[in-house]
Amino acid sequence: MEFSSSLLENAVSEFAKLPGIGKKTALRLVLHLLKQDPGNVAAFGEAVLKMRREIKFCERCYNVADATTCAICANPLRKQELICVVENIRDVIAIESTQQFSGIYHVLGGIISPLDGIGPDQLTIEPLIQRIPKEKTEELIFALNPNIQGDTTIYYIQKKLQGTPVKITTIARGIAFGGELEYADEMTLARSITNRLPVEKYVQH
Amino acid sequence: MEFSSSLLENAVSEFAKLPGIGKKTALRLVLHLLKQDPGNVAAFGEAVLKMRREIKFCERCYNVADATTCAICANPLRKQELICVVENIRDVIAIESTQQFSGIYHVLGGIISPLDGIGPDQLTIEPLIQRIPKEKTEELIFALNPNIQGDTTIYYIQKKLQGTPVKITTIARGIAFGGELEYADEMTLARSITNRLPVEKYVQH
Ligand SMILES: [Zn+2]
Ligand SMILES: [Zn+2]
Repeated sequence: MEFSSSLLENAVSEFAKLPGIGKKTALRLVLHLLKQDPGNVAAFGEAVLKMRREIKFCERCYNVADATTCAICANPLRKQELICVVENIRDVIAIESTQQFSGIYHVLGGIISPLDGIGPDQLTIEPLIQRIPKEKTEELIFALNPNIQGDTTIYYIQKKLQGTPVKITTIARGIAFGGELEYADEMTLARSITNRLPVEKYVQH
Repeated sequence: MEFSSSLLENAVSEFAKLPGIGKKTALRLVLHLLKQDPGNVAAFGEAVLKMRREIKFCERCYNVADATTCAICANPLRKQELICVVENIRDVIAIESTQQFSGIYHVLGGIISPLDGIGPDQLTIEPLIQRIPKEKTEELIFALNPNIQGDTTIYYIQKKLQGTPVKITTIARGIAFGGELEYADEMTLARSITNRLPVEKYVQH
């Protein structure tokens, strides 16, 4: 197979490196861009470059940010004493799209998973523990995937917070055990936040 | 829905403009890029920018090119007196991927379609007619989609070339290998009967 243009070939092979994008799809996307106004294509390329080059992680919640503090933490309309603990950025976005949560977040950067060699120290658990007295947090809502590792993580953090006057809840089991939070429909996710439970009712095993 | 970073939000909305890429897929692709080495992401963004900014169209065959002549036309190993006429760049790539064609191409940029307001003047038909005596073309292979517009285009060009000593052929049409005869459309089936071949020419393996 010979490409008539190495510029085209390079763009196709770059797109084909993306997950779930095969060679044929990559070609279709590149030929689409080729038909677009150069200004639109520049906007596409520059948005990607700028994102990777300039993005930061919020010093408070570890979510992606444009500055040292993310837009969610910096929003005065959000309840600063209500923290939703999630595994990753994708989960923040899933919860935000329900438009049902008015607090702020804490992104753990993973969950405790001894089999994968992930212990508490590789996660942002210590910074979370420190946030609670400093920010006078009233409630911590765990929105972790309902599986063994999620439960282990909740249990570990709860232990660390024993004696602290913070209410600890977890999103309701609207999501099937073993299910993936980010693929839940918005309704299920929204309800599971509204019907959140105190953690002691949840982690019973 | 609130994004914690406008850099992330912009990148997602740019990806979501691509055909067949929904908001969720766009997010997945951007989060993948976010995890990559900045150098890899720069390579991606720059390949796209450079492609759109620098790509040219071959002055000879109208395929995409890095210079005034495309890599296929410039390849001395390709039979310069054998031209395959196609509708668009995608068709060139499809034929190249078969690795069965050793000639060069001519990209029409469309096919004659009066209903869509596309006449011969909007296509690169005149440049094709001029190539034939200049390049001493021996054979013109039409590789157009088998439909009315394709046939109209072939007929029009063939008329224009009457009296020219160039052999004009078209790719064989019929039921695709592995296809089901009963599900073939009538036109294809009818033609495959009309243009039946002696069995010895067909089963050569
Ligand atoms: Zn933040
Ligand atoms: Zn060319």
